[in-house]
Order: sequence, then structure tokens, then C-alpha cells
Amino acid sequence: MIDELSKLPGIGPKTAQRLTFHLLRLPPEDVLPLARALEEAKERIGFCRKCFNLTEEEECELCRDPRRDPGLICVVEEPSDIISVERTHEYRGRYHVLGGALSPIDGVGPDRLRMEELFRRVREEDVREVIVATNPTMSGEATALYIAEELRPEVGAGKLRVTRPAAGLPMGGDLEYADEVTLSRALAGRRDV
Amino acid sequence: MIDELSKLPGIGPKTAQRLTFHLLRLPPEDVLPLARALEEAKERIGFCRKCFNLTEEEECELCRDPRRDPGLICVVEEPSDIISVERTHEYRGRYHVLGGALSPIDGVGPDRLRMEELFRRVREEDVREVIVATNPTMSGEATALYIAEELRPEVGAGKLRVTRPAAGLPMGGDLEYADEVTLSRALAGRRDV
Repeated sequence: MIDELSKLPGIGPKTAQRLTFHLLRLPPEDVLPLARALEEAKERIGFCRKCFNLTEEEECELCRDPRRDPGLICVVEEPSDIISVERTHEYRGRYHVLGGALSPIDGVGPDRLRMEELFRRVREEDVREVIVATNPTMSGEATALYIAEELRPEVGAGKLRVTRPAAGLPMGGDLEYADEVTLSRALAGRRDV
Repeated sequence: MIDELSKLPGIGPKTAQRLTFHLLRLPPEDVLPLARALEEAKERIGFCRKCFNLTEEEECELCRDPRRDPGLICVVEEPSDIISVERTHEYRGRYHVLGGALSPIDGVGPDRLRMEELFRRVREEDVREVIVATNPTMSGEATALYIAEELRPEVGAGKLRVTRPAAGLPMGGDLEYADEVTLSRALAGRRDV
């Protein structure tokens, strides 16, 4: 049990041990609901066959919502990133979850991500814009470049835009605490007031 | 001495007391250099008459550097912000230090900042672009809007651009930790890859 718990993110062997002793001390009726919740979640929750978001259905809620614009696909690394974008209440398109970002060092090539599924959607559905909202990290940037490169024929034909959210200064921040790379990007991406 | 020290930013009465007792314990030859450094700094260092950066001369180093583009003015709140922008090694124009940002609640109107001096520079020198790099806060944004409004005739005449560094996701970050306002801005300001 300690071994299994310490495989979870953010839980080291010490915490795993503490959790284990805590759970062992509890009466079974307090622990079994957790075990059942885990089983049930693993049984019932799978990936949306269209966008690979988590869902209990064949297709997730967002893909089934007819009010969402199918011409706009926001590409993210993980299902949890959908929650971040939804929190802005400003995006009304669809999503596509890659399941990670390109990272040759870790052996993650395009075939390990839902890339072909994305390209198929772009070609089959009437998509006007792909917003690549992968993380603003080295591998997130590389992933965005790869997608733009693969979709170049469609972009060249004027049928599609491949965009990326702006890199820049976080709101409420202070120039003094901005790192150089972010500030460079913010200056390079400056816009008319 | 405790009173004077506790006026410094980040130094509360407790720290001020600790510093005072520490300084009193030292031999005079260890304390007098600090006192003299303070006096000298206050005597010798003043504001650049052009951009209001800190300088020991009439005009600061950056204003006197002939290799810097006088057609580009980066407007910042404080002299310390110049150091942040310089650290990017990508900006080769001039600066203008406002001495703060507009904040009606605190009684800081345009007359309390070096606004007129900025507008005079824009009109008298051959300025093509004013980059308003005030902080990405409410008052920094308000200051940028005020400057754009005041320079509207020049912008309308096609002689000038007033720009602002991009607001968006800081580099190396994670979508999951981005606040909604920043992520909204990043999405609104998205660019073609």
C-alpha cells in the first residue's frame, strides 16, 4: 500500500507511510467508499472519442454542446488545462487534448500524442482556427511549432489559422519581478494601445 | 534612529530596532562609511533632466549614448524598471521615467508624474514610438490609456505609435497556474505561429 500510494504525484515515501497508517487505523466502512470510488471512476470515466477530454460518455459534454463553435479548436496538453481555459469564460470553441507535449529527451514523439487525431479533425471538420494552448515551456513551444508545420498546407491555402496565446507579463504583476525571457517576449509582442 | 530606519520599505519597527542595536554595538569606523555613503549618494545622485533616470550627471548614460535610437521611448514607472528592461538586452531605444502611475484614489494625477515632460519630448524630438511599459496593474493600465489619449493627435496623424508590452502567459509557466485574467488576455492576444 505504501508503494502504491508513493507512486502518486506529490506523495513521497514518508507521506505514503503516514497515509497508510492513518487508513489502517480507520474502520473499514470509512475506507471502503474510497476504494469503491477509485474503482468506479476507473470503470466509468474514459476519454472522449473526439477530443480526449475525460468523460463518462462516448463524447464529452463540451463536444456535445451545440452552442460551442466547432470551427475553433483549442489544443491543450492535459484535461486539467481545459478547466483553466473554461475558467476565463471567454472561449466558446471546442478542445483537443494531446495527452502531453513533445519531448524527444523523454522519448515522447508525435506518435505518443493525439496528433493524428487532431489533424484528422482539422481536415474533416470545418475548422477555421487551431489555438495551440500548450504550456509556455520549451516542450510546449516545440509542440506548437510541430502542429503549425504539419498544418502548413491548410494554413497556406488560407483555410486555417494556427495561433498561440500571447506570451507576456502576467496581469497584476510588476516589471521588477518579470524574468528576462518573459519581458523580451512581452516587448516583442507589444501592441498598439 | 529606530523611527528613521522603520520608514524604509520592508523594515518594520522590530527589524529597525534590531538594526539599531547592531549598529550601536559596532565601532564608529564601521558605521561612519555607511553614513557618508548615504550623504554622498544624496548629494551626487539626481534625476536625468531628460528622462528622469537616476544619474550623477546632468543627463544619464542612456540619454547620452549615441548608439541608442532616440526615435523610441520606453515609458516606465520607476528607475528600477529600466534595469529590468535593460536585462533583456533587446531594447536599444531611450527611456522616460514617470515617477509612478496614475492613481486617483491616492491623489496621484497626471501633474504628479512627469507627463508633460514626456509629451514635450515626443513633440520636440523625432519620436516614432512610445512603448508604455508601466506595470500590468490597474494603475499601470490606466496610465497607458491616459498617455495614448493625450498623444492621440500625433497617432492620428500617422507620425507616432503608442504601444504596450504584451500581457500573457509568463514563459516557463503552466496553464494550470495561470490566473483567469492573464489567460483571458493571452487568448485575446493570440498570434499566428
